[in-house]
Amino acid sequence: MSKRSRAAEYTRRIEATAAAADAAGIDAVLVQPGSDMTYLCGYEALPLERLTCLVIPARGEPAIVVPELEVLAATASPVGAMGLDILAWPETKSPHKLLAKRLGKVKKVAVNQQMWASHVFALQAQLPLVRLSADTTVSELRMRKSEAEAKALLEAGKAIDRVHVKVPKLLRPGRTEREVGADIADLILAEGHRSVDFVIVASGPNSASPHHELSDRVIEPGDPVVVDIGGTMPSGYCSDCTRTYHMGRPGQAYADAYEALRQAQAASVASVRPGVTCEAVDAAARDVLKRAGLGEAFVHRTGHGIGLSTHEEPYIVAGNTTKVEPGFAFSIEPGFYLAGKYGARIEDIVVATTDGVLSCNNETRELVVVDA
Amino acid sequence: MSKRSRAAEYTRRIEATAAAADAAGIDAVLVQPGSDMTYLCGYEALPLERLTCLVIPARGEPAIVVPELEVLAATASPVGAMGLDILAWPETKSPHKLLAKRLGKVKKVAVNQQMWASHVFALQAQLPLVRLSADTTVSELRMRKSEAEAKALLEAGKAIDRVHVKVPKLLRPGRTEREVGADIADLILAEGHRSVDFVIVASGPNSASPHHELSDRVIEPGDPVVVDIGGTMPSGYCSDCTRTYHMGRPGQAYADAYEALRQAQAASVASVRPGVTCEAVDAAARDVLKRAGLGEAFVHRTGHGIGLSTHEEPYIVAGNTTKVEPGFAFSIEPGFYLAGKYGARIEDIVVATTDGVLSCNNETRELVVVDA
Repeated sequence: MSKRSRAAEYTRRIEATAAAADAAGIDAVLVQPGSDMTYLCGYEALPLERLTCLVIPARGEPAIVVPELEVLAATASPVGAMGLDILAWPETKSPHKLLAKRLGKVKKVAVNQQMWASHVFALQAQLPLVRLSADTTVSELRMRKSEAEAKALLEAGKAIDRVHVKVPKLLRPGRTEREVGADIADLILAEGHRSVDFVIVASGPNSASPHHELSDRVIEPGDPVVVDIGGTMPSGYCSDCTRTYHMGRPGQAYADAYEALRQAQAASVASVRPGVTCEAVDAAARDVLKRAGLGEAFVHRTGHGIGLSTHEEPYIVAGNTTKVEPGFAFSIEPGFYLAGKYGARIEDIVVATTDGVLSCNNETRELVVVDA
Repeated sequence: MSKRSRAAEYTRRIEATAAAADAAGIDAVLVQPGSDMTYLCGYEALPLERLTCLVIPARGEPAIVVPELEVLAATASPVGAMGLDILAWPETKSPHKLLAKRLGKVKKVAVNQQMWASHVFALQAQLPLVRLSADTTVSELRMRKSEAEAKALLEAGKAIDRVHVKVPKLLRPGRTEREVGADIADLILAEGHRSVDFVIVASGPNSASPHHELSDRVIEPGDPVVVDIGGTMPSGYCSDCTRTYHMGRPGQAYADAYEALRQAQAASVASVRPGVTCEAVDAAARDVLKRAGLGEAFVHRTGHGIGLSTHEEPYIVAGNTTKVEPGFAFSIEPGFYLAGKYGARIEDIVVATTDGVLSCNNETRELVVVDA
């Protein structure tokens, strides 16, 4: 995309946010740096104690509040080409006062969900009569991926798939999870990501901990190894894919449980189409595991949305009655976890289409048996 | 440190937080993952939409609220050895309700400064009569570094100094800022950091932008190049150091301005001793630059605290009357920035002692002239 068409796309997103806020009776939406700001104006500043904040009034001109020393950096970002008003604040002045002044007469203001508490309280002190709330307009917009965004997620999926293809060569009895994890991190970068977001290598009994941290445990023959990895591509879009490996052939009980998991994941993927609720997609996986006697062992939701951040709307969880629309992108990642024994997980990122899904991850979902 | 003595140190920090809260009339302090939580219990979870939260009552037993799927990960962290109460919440229940129940009868609750707005509002909804505020007790504690922490910062300083020693070899006319930045990022890891936090390579007119992003600008003979870099060490402590390089010998005007900057930075370092205010340390640098006619060109504060995060208390800025104590660690980084022309900055991390400072960065502060 040219600089100009990118600026036009950002401007459309800000206009859509303003319209959604207006429809919801919100007078303005405020956004600190992070993936919401990246989505709305392409400015990838760090969220810090110095306030940088995009101001989107429901009606009126948007603007961005920026520390004086970052005006040149902001202007060099797409913010410059968009022609956004840049409101600079010097080091010894209150940015919250400047922000309050720009907002003018408002009653209800939404702030991005990840805004720091310190900024929320400082702003509330300047606007004692204003009702602040957590914004939902931007996350709703971000849930519906454009074609270009879906393409970026497919590219991210291909990159992480290429890493998984190489994982079996790294898994050898006698190596530690940490050693294998370091090699995987190198591969994530080598295969085209700009950063490594997380690397889970959970071996043996550690596979029963869904969010296990890399440890010095030595991988042994007979271990299952859950490998859940992801990074951010140069496009800004994220990958996230889990496969389960096994050091030598598994016993019958593990093999049976894994087969139920494989069917559960496939059933959940097959259930996705426009109009189905997020909780129904969760139930599709959960029902299969329940029937296999593994309902209690599946201790987490089935998935989460993904895009410019690894976790975002929609969450694929009981209670979420949001209906799937074409362009929704999310993980489908059931697992089973038996404390003290073992666990497994299979995860793909899928993008909903008009009649089903495109899967971003396409390496085998069978248990990968590694020589040990 | 042994696992047990580390757990004892964390327990002391939590007790100190509780005591400070009690003294301030705060009933409890709540801390989401991030550097505050790492400081208080060594648990390095990611801040996410699923709430993980340390609960420190002014009087009573501390606890940690954790998503059910992360109980094993939390137990494997120092939290396990500390014997903290772990309150697990299943995916379909409200963690904020669980948290409110644990708090019991409270009137004033402080939340860590970086807690997400979404969690703040969800908690306020559960505790409509409770006054929430931004916590200051933990940042006050973190400001005073222990001997072990000061040692970790000195190690971090040595590591980033080793990178700066190698920068001149990377700076050649015809290379882009981005190319040089990629090499520097590799060196930051090679010299012992566990992650790269930021890399600024600001050449030619870009040197006038204090927080310049890496660009495709080609470095040319006659350019100044500001290199401001930092990473996180395996200890969790951060480095941050700026040096200014020049492609060939500078003109007289630039050399004179740089010499004023060098004197300003030295004067600020020399001003640090117990009892001096943070704003006086700022003024010591600013006064020298003002006398050289560069007061308007020094557009930012003189420095920021550093430790488990790159930016923390104390801020070295006009208006901050906090008095320096032994163990305070912060940057001293004056600069001058002339838009459209050029800029420069010199930055060291210093740790205040009983009678002055230890500097973590010790490579030459003269302008480094590179063959071009």
